[in-house]
Order: sequence, then C-alpha cells, then structure tokens
Amino acid sequence: MPDKLRVAIRDVPNFPEDGIIFKDITPVLADPELLQCSIDRIAATAEGLEIDKVVGIDARGFIFAPSVALKYAAGFVPVRKKGKLPWNTKSIAYSLEYGANEIEIHEDAVKPGDRVLLIDDLLATGGTASAAVKLLQQLGAEVVCVTFLIELDFLNGRDAIDCENIQSILHYS
Amino acid sequence: MPDKLRVAIRDVPNFPEDGIIFKDITPVLADPELLQCSIDRIAATAEGLEIDKVVGIDARGFIFAPSVALKYAAGFVPVRKKGKLPWNTKSIAYSLEYGANEIEIHEDAVKPGDRVLLIDDLLATGGTASAAVKLLQQLGAEVVCVTFLIELDFLNGRDAIDCENIQSILHYS
Repeated sequence: MPDKLRVAIRDVPNFPEDGIIFKDITPVLADPELLQCSIDRIAATAEGLEIDKVVGIDARGFIFAPSVALKYAAGFVPVRKKGKLPWNTKSIAYSLEYGANEIEIHEDAVKPGDRVLLIDDLLATGGTASAAVKLLQQLGAEVVCVTFLIELDFLNGRDAIDCENIQSILHYS
Repeated sequence: MPDKLRVAIRDVPNFPEDGIIFKDITPVLADPELLQCSIDRIAATAEGLEIDKVVGIDARGFIFAPSVALKYAAGFVPVRKKGKLPWNTKSIAYSLEYGANEIEIHEDAVKPGDRVLLIDDLLATGGTASAAVKLLQQLGAEVVCVTFLIELDFLNGRDAIDCENIQSILHYS
C-alpha cells in the first residue's frame, strides 16, 4: 500500500529554480489526518530517548517541532535566519550550492548537557541542518536525533551532519 | 498573581530598530509547561467554534497554529512571505510603517465556506494580519476568529482587521 503521506506530497517542477522538483508538503499539512500522522511519525523517531529541547529550523521546521516538543514535555527552540532573533545570539555561516547563508540561535536557548532533537521538513544537501547541529554543539548540547519529514537520498545530505542518529520519514531516490 | 506567560516574556530594547521594545517569546517556548500553556490558551479562544483550517502567519505563527489545528482536528495552512510557496498563489501587498510587504497563500489552501482560525504571535499595527484576512476572504473562507499571543493595545491594530472576533492572550498598554 502506498504511504499516504507520500501520496499527498505535491511535486512542483522548476521551483525555486529551473531543474529542481520541489516537494510541496502543504497538502499534507492541510489534511487533519495527515497533519497528525506526520507529527506522530516524526515524534516516533525519537521514541525512548530523553529529550530536553526540540529544535526547529526556520521556517518549516517550526511547523512540526513545537507539537513534537509537547509530546516529549520538552521545550521548543527556534534556529533562525540571521537577524530574526532579538536577544544575544550565536551564529554560524555556511555555504550553499549558490552563495552562502547564516543561521542563529539565542545563547540561552539550550543548556550544556541538554539532549536535543533537531527537526526540519526536508534534508537536501544538509548545509542548514549541519550548521544547526554545530551551533547546538557549540552551546554544549548533545544532539541525540535529527529528524526530517523528507530526505532526498541522492544528495547524500546526511553525510554532512555530525549526528549518528539521523531519521527521515520519506526517502526519495 | 502575575500571569506566568507575561512574566516569562523578555523585553528586548531597540530591536529590530531603535526605540522599539521587542517582546521576545523564546523563553515561553523553551519552557515545556509555558509552551503547553500558550498553545492551550490560544486554542481556547476558539472553543465552541467549528474550525476547518487553522492558518498561521510566517514565521512565528507557524509555532502555534499546527498544534492548535491538531486540537480542532483541522488542517494547517501557512500564509508566507512572497516567493516561499511553491505552487499557484494568491498574493496581497500592504504598507508598513516603513516600506511595503507582500504575503501569499496557495490558491487551494482553503475552500469556499471553510471556517478559519487565524493565528500569529503578535498584533502590532495589524498590517500583516489584516492582509491575511483579506487573502482568506478572497478565497471564499470565513475568518471566524483571529488570535494573537500578544497584543500591543496602544497601536490599535485590531481596528485594521476585518473580523469581529479578535482575541489576544496578553495585552500590553
């Protein structure tokens, strides 16, 4: 039986640029049953682990991470694009296929020893997730699991991420 | 007794520009009990209403809206900054104190007659929320409630929003 989440995801050709087929998750989010299912399955990837903070990456990681945090009675922490967090931040720059990017976290967002589950919607080349893991490690947190709704296996993004426990709900080859 | 959410919110002076005191909600989000409380209280503002879609505004609205959607067995719909949604969009431009902005929604995000709860973290001048309500109405949805975690009463933002049921958890005068 085909995976009901996979069936609902919409391929949008040539977004954000020519030659890219974008995986549009909005049909999953708009369906109450599939929304619940996606959050349950993401949460299940860390089952049995003790989680202090669930970190979501700006902006689509924010859609899943707080609901998962509630399930673990953990706090939610946003990692944001540069310039969006108001207080004292730690930032990291990283390169993308075209150009560079920078993400930030509040300095008090995690405590040394905090056990973190990091969530984003999609793993492509892994640049952003890899940078987020580094930020969290620099603050002394232990990233015990990194979970994506979608992984584009052919880009080998997981090789870039310094975590032994990387999970994805849907794989595309 | 002081409101525990209010106590946790951090005032950050001169962000994003001089003279503005930014209400930083990250300490609320990082505390499991306060995260749960904020979502419960936002959800409670629409109690008794039939809700088909919970719409969150990019990006902090995404933190609350999906969890609230789960409570109502409703779908979640993102309203995003221009250029972020991959499929066919309807967009609206609106003016800010300095300059202009544009937000978008997928054309199939809501159906005519859908009853919508719109959520964002903060109501200031109401420009973005007012534009989001207009977008939803143009798609034929009925916005039955607009809820904010924080309302800056002195900016009278609610006057700009075309909805009779505007709720805020914390008011600042």
